[in-house]
This record gives sequence, structure tokens and C-alpha cells, in this order.
Amino acid sequence: MGEPTIITNSAGRPVPSEVNGVKQTPFRGVGKFKPVGNKAAPPIRSCADYPADGNKVVGSLREALEKCGLSDGMTVSSHHHFRNGDLVMNRVFDVIADMGVKGLRWFPSAAFPCHKPVIEHIKKGVVDWVEGSLNGPLGDFASRGGMRGKAVLRSHGGRWQAVQDGEVHIDIAILAAPTADAFGNATGDRGPSACGLLGFGLVDSLYADKVIVVTDNLVPFPCVPWQIMGQNVDYVVVLDKIGDPEKIVSGTTRLTRSPDRLYIAELTAKFVRAAGIMRDGFSFQAGAGGTALAFAIYLREMMKEAGVKARFIRGGSTKYLVEMLEEGLTDFILDGQTFDLEGVRSMRENRGHVATSPFTSYNWHGKGNFASLVDVVVLGATEVDVHFNANVVTHSDGRMLHGIGGWQNCLFSKCTILPIPAFRDRIPIIVDKVTTLVGPGELIDVIVTERGIAINPRRKDLIAATKNSGLPIRPIEEIKAEVDDLIGGPPAKPELTDEVIGVVKWVDGTVIDSIYRIKE
Amino acid sequence: MGEPTIITNSAGRPVPSEVNGVKQTPFRGVGKFKPVGNKAAPPIRSCADYPADGNKVVGSLREALEKCGLSDGMTVSSHHHFRNGDLVMNRVFDVIADMGVKGLRWFPSAAFPCHKPVIEHIKKGVVDWVEGSLNGPLGDFASRGGMRGKAVLRSHGGRWQAVQDGEVHIDIAILAAPTADAFGNATGDRGPSACGLLGFGLVDSLYADKVIVVTDNLVPFPCVPWQIMGQNVDYVVVLDKIGDPEKIVSGTTRLTRSPDRLYIAELTAKFVRAAGIMRDGFSFQAGAGGTALAFAIYLREMMKEAGVKARFIRGGSTKYLVEMLEEGLTDFILDGQTFDLEGVRSMRENRGHVATSPFTSYNWHGKGNFASLVDVVVLGATEVDVHFNANVVTHSDGRMLHGIGGWQNCLFSKCTILPIPAFRDRIPIIVDKVTTLVGPGELIDVIVTERGIAINPRRKDLIAATKNSGLPIRPIEEIKAEVDDLIGGPPAKPELTDEVIGVVKWVDGTVIDSIYRIKE
Repeated sequence: MGEPTIITNSAGRPVPSEVNGVKQTPFRGVGKFKPVGNKAAPPIRSCADYPADGNKVVGSLREALEKCGLSDGMTVSSHHHFRNGDLVMNRVFDVIADMGVKGLRWFPSAAFPCHKPVIEHIKKGVVDWVEGSLNGPLGDFASRGGMRGKAVLRSHGGRWQAVQDGEVHIDIAILAAPTADAFGNATGDRGPSACGLLGFGLVDSLYADKVIVVTDNLVPFPCVPWQIMGQNVDYVVVLDKIGDPEKIVSGTTRLTRSPDRLYIAELTAKFVRAAGIMRDGFSFQAGAGGTALAFAIYLREMMKEAGVKARFIRGGSTKYLVEMLEEGLTDFILDGQTFDLEGVRSMRENRGHVATSPFTSYNWHGKGNFASLVDVVVLGATEVDVHFNANVVTHSDGRMLHGIGGWQNCLFSKCTILPIPAFRDRIPIIVDKVTTLVGPGELIDVIVTERGIAINPRRKDLIAATKNSGLPIRPIEEIKAEVDDLIGGPPAKPELTDEVIGVVKWVDGTVIDSIYRIKE
Repeated sequence: MGEPTIITNSAGRPVPSEVNGVKQTPFRGVGKFKPVGNKAAPPIRSCADYPADGNKVVGSLREALEKCGLSDGMTVSSHHHFRNGDLVMNRVFDVIADMGVKGLRWFPSAAFPCHKPVIEHIKKGVVDWVEGSLNGPLGDFASRGGMRGKAVLRSHGGRWQAVQDGEVHIDIAILAAPTADAFGNATGDRGPSACGLLGFGLVDSLYADKVIVVTDNLVPFPCVPWQIMGQNVDYVVVLDKIGDPEKIVSGTTRLTRSPDRLYIAELTAKFVRAAGIMRDGFSFQAGAGGTALAFAIYLREMMKEAGVKARFIRGGSTKYLVEMLEEGLTDFILDGQTFDLEGVRSMRENRGHVATSPFTSYNWHGKGNFASLVDVVVLGATEVDVHFNANVVTHSDGRMLHGIGGWQNCLFSKCTILPIPAFRDRIPIIVDKVTTLVGPGELIDVIVTERGIAINPRRKDLIAATKNSGLPIRPIEEIKAEVDDLIGGPPAKPELTDEVIGVVKWVDGTVIDSIYRIKE
């Protein structure tokens, strides 16, 4: 294909024409890119090639990988429902290194700090690059130019889209499962390593050439529910322990204690009430960060006070959302991942606590998805500019330390609110230009800071609805000027080289921005 | 392609090389045909083309069909969960006739006597032929050469396989749903026309170009469970009434009162016990016919007596199976269709009553399916020969009056038993050669008649296990001779022409036999 050229996309960001050998389409604007062609088509299989008694258990990870025909240059995928408690993928790469296989692409839905050992496998040539959310050390490593391929950051929905559309072909999917049967039916909602659900691995099970289920809790057929269907599975491997339960239930679900953040959370809930969004039958989604959690708790109190019941709440679920379900404050939790053991229990026990997948919730290349049906979503950001464009993947020093998660997908809700502190470590969050563009400002409606609430001028309806609310609503430029003043001028720009080490995909598979190697 | 030639397949049956313009592979033997290539690949869609508020409701069937671009020669599909109580498809074809569209292929999972009006649409050229199970009048009509295309009889699993493998392309799927939301999420387990599940329409929703959900019970988003996912649905149509509940719950679930059949059912249960199949953790499947129902009731009593509990029972579910689940005689009902309202209630209420689909249960072109994991299955037949080959689709007069259902797929269970009367209307059931070959004898293990039990000589294990059981086990030839003697010679052969009006597919998509026009 020759050297990739750099093209300026419709958001004014320079992006490469090719990434890891795959031709790219530059971002064309929200809803502007129309896909053509057909979905990926996995090979037709025959039951004649699978055991009639349904027993697909093999003796070891190595045996499974050998039977799958693992070879140099393949793509190996995994899901991140164990978050920082995953005990499978490091073992997998150790086995692969032992087998002498080289040059793999690892395609996880996300990598976590626990996957730091993969850096050594990259250095030794076992893995060429990781294509997935790079939280923490792997992101830092990539930001310093450590990978032989480029990082490709996709939203949860974008990962589904990329596999479904054939942009990423998975050779072997390795799906850790807290409970499974010998046929390969698997669930995340029970077992010693229970993580709730397995939705992030669903697309892998549907489209990968070969699928290995890895469990530490083998049960007699049938494993019910079958979040992963054995009809898509080739082999089952039983290990002693696949996840560390304490780290599976995320540490990010601690409620904030910061007075500023509590104030921001309360302001956000008050805004939702004042704007008329909090009404019978409404819906909301709030992430698992401390501020978002606090928002949900404030909103719950306001709902009780007003006698309002939600139709559904979108998870990541926590004990706070489960309480709302069990108190009758909502008919449903539509859950994409469980963040604590109460979420896991509720998913197992409550019919109204429903497992979703990136297909149902987020895939832009479906016949609609759930994201645009949500009345209000409350999300975080590392930076926002005065046009409401936002960044969630790089820090103010330019390092790529976070994945996108469902963030881009959620922007399609009817009202998107970012409650963010005006400063972090004395660095202002509202900037002239975000280091990395992840979310176009036209989809971001409200910024809530401890210094006031800014409404996107496009949302005349929200401005009108909250006009006489008494809330501290101010132009975003005014909040920025006040913060810059306090610091003594706008924040310093991160020190970056012009070497592209990664790209950010928009929900439709186009490239919305580049990520650059940092200066050391 | 020129005139199709007639080829003799590996079962010795002459079959056409081409059917309805599609090249065919003759049956090659059980497990012998290896598929090549990739699954069908539906077009990639974009949320940009669907309403952001999720409201896909349109005003009428006609509007939906027009928006789907219905035109001459297309394939329109539907499921048969309403059985003889379907009120949708006759309306659909009346609308299509009004629109002036011609030459359609109707691809239902099954047609029932209630669909007799479609004969008029065939005569008028609206529909060219029906490709699906033809129960009753449509089968009779086809047997007399009434259709402009050939009947293609497929098992439930074979229908999934044909769509998945791209052999049948569905242009527009019309999925009647007892409950749905405006986004297209749909379920069969509730609503005034509740039919239990919608599994027979699942493949249509996944692979059709356009999907219309038709409901008489629109609920606020989300419709939970979503047996059909709105992300695969284009339009939703609301009608006053989509099904006649009395006819949805099948009349075939009446227990037999015939002393002969009760005796056969009891013998069958005794055989299962004597063969050592009825043990803790075992599984069974019995159809909804009167004899199969009686078998389940006898077996239940024997299980209670012996203190044996099943791991799972495969439905079609009835109140008898629901009682077993609720009495703790099984952990699970894995259900493909509910045959009565108790089945519907249980599916809604019991976590152990699990919806399946032809993909999980029967698709031969998957990585295994549930059918081969079942310890014993009890099925019917219209004819059996002394090599245990069986027929379920044509009668002794040659008329094609029944679909295959899951029958062929179930033959892969660990033990297949056909409890059948030795005569029907004084016509012997055991014949020299079955009129239509639907199931190869190598997969059929036991025939139970009121004149004795015949075990397939291939099953030395079953012969040994039941040797000292005291059961009336006899060679099949002996039973046949005795019956023929009573009648005064073997039965007359049906009067058939040599014109092929349909074919029977094997589970792998190959052609196992032809069906001929009857002489009038």
C-alpha cells in the first residue's frame, strides 16, 4: 500500500490513510458515513466435525491453541469482564511464547494494569501490538512508541462494528467464563469468579474462526443462561482459577468523598430535574466513576421525593442501581457490565436486571441501538473545549491512559451531560483545543463544573427549560476564562512528537483523530 | 441451467439435480457431506437510517411492505408459532394481492390448514410456491401438482441451515409477535396471543434483508425478554388481533385414549427404564402427539418410583412437562415451542424453562447442537421399513400432508425410539420400502408396536441391555410378517406419477428423497 498519507478529516484533525495495513476512512461528521457491503461471513461448520456427546474439553490451554492452529501473525481476542482481576490472558501469552509463535495481534475489548506482563511479550516479538482499550501501563508503553503496530481505540459499539463489518478478523477468541459446560455454553453470572455477564466477548464468539472457552467452574450440561452459546465454541479448557474476584469487582465504584465532586454530582441531578427529564417512565445511564455514582444517588432521592419511577436504567450496574430496581424505582436495569457483587447477584436473581451486549446497546451499524433511546447520560472526560468537543483517552501530558468504553456510543442519548471538575491537579479541564478529539461537541449538551453549568448553545430547548431554575448556568467561555485567570493563563500544551502511535475510531469505523508519541 | 437431471443418491433414491433454480447436492450418507464456504452475509446497516427515538411503528401492513420495497419474485418468510391460529399471513397475502405484486415464494417455517386461502393466491399468481412444511390442504394441493415451484421440505434445523448457508435468501421476514415494543424487540411469552417463544423466526430476523414485526400488544420500550432483537427489525405494525389463542395451543396435545396406543406408550417407557437410560441426570425428548405424551406420563411415574431426576427435558412443552419441572423431576425444560398455555406460563415464570432456537437445538452446520446430547427421543412416523428407514411426510396414499419438524434433527439423540401402531386404518405401518425416505435407518434404534419391540441390529448395546427385561423384543421382520399375514399380504403401494413435486432435504442440505405427484 506504500506509506500512509496524512489526511485532514472533517473535524480538522490529521489522520493516517492506513493503519496496521488496513485502509482507513477519515471521519466525515456525525451520521455522514454510509457503510456499503455486507457483514463478515464466518465459515460454515458441520456437527460431523464436533463430538456427538458434546464434550469439547481439552487438557490444556496449549492443546486448545494447537488444535485451533495458532500460528504466526494471527489475531487473538479476549473480553475484559474480569477487568483488573483477569488471570487468563497472561497465562495464554506465556503459553504462546513457549510455543514459539510470533507476531500476534492481541485484540482485547480492553487491557488493564494487570496485563503489564504483555509488554515483555511485545518486546520479545510474541505480540506485535495490542488493538483495544489500553488502560494504564500498556497505554503508557504505546505512548512512548513501544508497539510495532498502532493502537486503535474503539468504543464498545465500535469494536462490535469492526468485527461485524469484517474490518477486524479474529482467528482465535479466548473467552474466560466464570461458569461453563463441556459443550461450551457459558455464563458470567455465577461461579467463584462471577463477573456478571460476558457481552463484550459475544461478537468474538459469533465471528471468530475458532473459539476457546476457559473456565474454573465446569457444570453439567446445560449451563443456563448461555450468554455464550456452545454452538459457537470449539474447545473448552478448565483452569484452577481464572479471575481474582476482588479485582473483578471494580475499584472505580467507590463513591467520591470530594466536596467539589459531590457538589457537581448534586448540580447534575438538579439540572436533570429542572430540565424536565426526570419524569415518570424516563431513563438514564451513569457510569461507575465516583461522581456519576453520586449523581445517581442524588437523583434517586429526588425521584423518591417527586414520586417518579424510571422505565429503565442502563448499567454498568452497582449496588445503588440494584437498590433502585429492588425498591421499585425502575422497571429494568439494562446492563452491559456489573461493577460489584450486588450487580452480579441481581443479574442472577432479578428478571428485571437484563444482560445486554454491545450489539443491543451500542453498535452503530445495526438497525438502531439502545443508546439513542436513553433520556440522559452522565459521563466523564479528561478535557473539554469551548465547542463542547471532548477527550477521554489522553491525559493533559498527552499519554494515552484510558479506553473509550461505551462513552462515544452514549453520546447519542437525548441529553449528554459531562460533570467534570474545573481543575485536576491544578490543570484546567476546559481547554482551547482537546489533545485528542473523541467526542464531537455537537453531541455533548451540558458541562457541569463546580464553577457553573454550561449548556451547548445548540440545545435551545434545554436552555429554555432551565432558564428560571435558579441553577448557576453560564457560558462555557466565561467558566474557562475564570479558571484560566486563577491559574495565570491557559494550560500548557502536552509535549508531543508528530509520530502517530494510534488512532481513535468514531462509532462508524472512520478515524476521528490521531494519537501521538510523547516527547521524553 | 437447463432441465434438471435425476440422480440416484447414496440411499438409492432418485432426486433432481436442481430445484426451483437452485443446484442440489444428492444425499451422501449421514455425516458424509462436508460444507465449504462461508455463511450468508446480510447487508451492513447504519443507525443513521433508523429513527433515533427508536419508534419504528408504521401505519399498516401495506405501508411496511411498501417501505421494504416488496416487488415481484421476492421471498417472504414467516414463523409458525401460532400454528393453526395464525391470523397474520392470510392478511399479508391479501394485502400483497391488492398491491398487485406477483410471483412470490412464501418461506414459512410451516403452513397449517388455516392457510388454505393461500391456494387461491397461488392460483392467481400472487404466490408461485410455498417452501416450508405443508401441513394439510396446502400439502394436498402440492401433491396434486398445484404449485409453480417444488415443495422443499426441511427439518427445523435444516431451515436454519438453509438460510444461514445462503441457500435461501429472505427478502422480507414478517414476524408475528404476541408482545413487542416500538423498537422491534419482541417476545412470544406474554400478551393476548401468547405462543411461548419465537425461535422459528429467529434466523429470519438475523438474515433477512428487511424484517417486519407484527403485534397486537405494543408495550413501552423495553419489551423484555427480547426473543427477537429490535436491532434486526426495520418496521413494526400493530394489528387488532394476530392470533387465535385457542388454536395457537395445539390440539395435538390431547392424551391418547386408544388402549393400543397407551400400551405402546407404556412399553416405550418400560424399554427406556430397562435399557438403563432412565438414570439420574438423564435427558429425554417426546413430541406432542398423544402417544408421546402418554409415554412421558408413564416415564414420570417410573422416575418417581425409582427416585430418578432428569437433568433436562427437551420440549415442545406441555402441562405434563411443566409439572415435572415444578415437581423437581428435572432441572430444566429446554423448549423449542410451547404446546399449551401452561407451557407459556412456565416459560414466563420458571428460570429452568429455557427458550431455545433451531440454532441451539438442531442446526447441523454449527459447532455441535443439542440434539445429539439427548439420551432418548420418542418420535412418530407414518411408515417404517425393515431396515428402520422411516417416513413422516407422506401418507400411505402418497399425499404429502406433514412437515418434518424437528424429527430428522432429533434422530441424532443417543437413542431414537418410534412408538407406532402396527396398523393405521387397517394399513400396515411396517413396509418393504417407505414411500418417502425422511430418516435413514442407521439413526433409528427402536420401533415399539402393540405387537412387540424391534431393536435395530446395529444397537448391540441396547439388545444386550434389555435381553433379560421380559419385554416383548422381536425381530422387525417377524412383526411385519405377522401384520402382513393378518391383512392378507403386504400393503398396496400408493399410486404415484413420476413427476417430482417436491424434495426432502437432509439436515445438511442434501436431497434425501423426491416426492411425487399423485395419480388422480
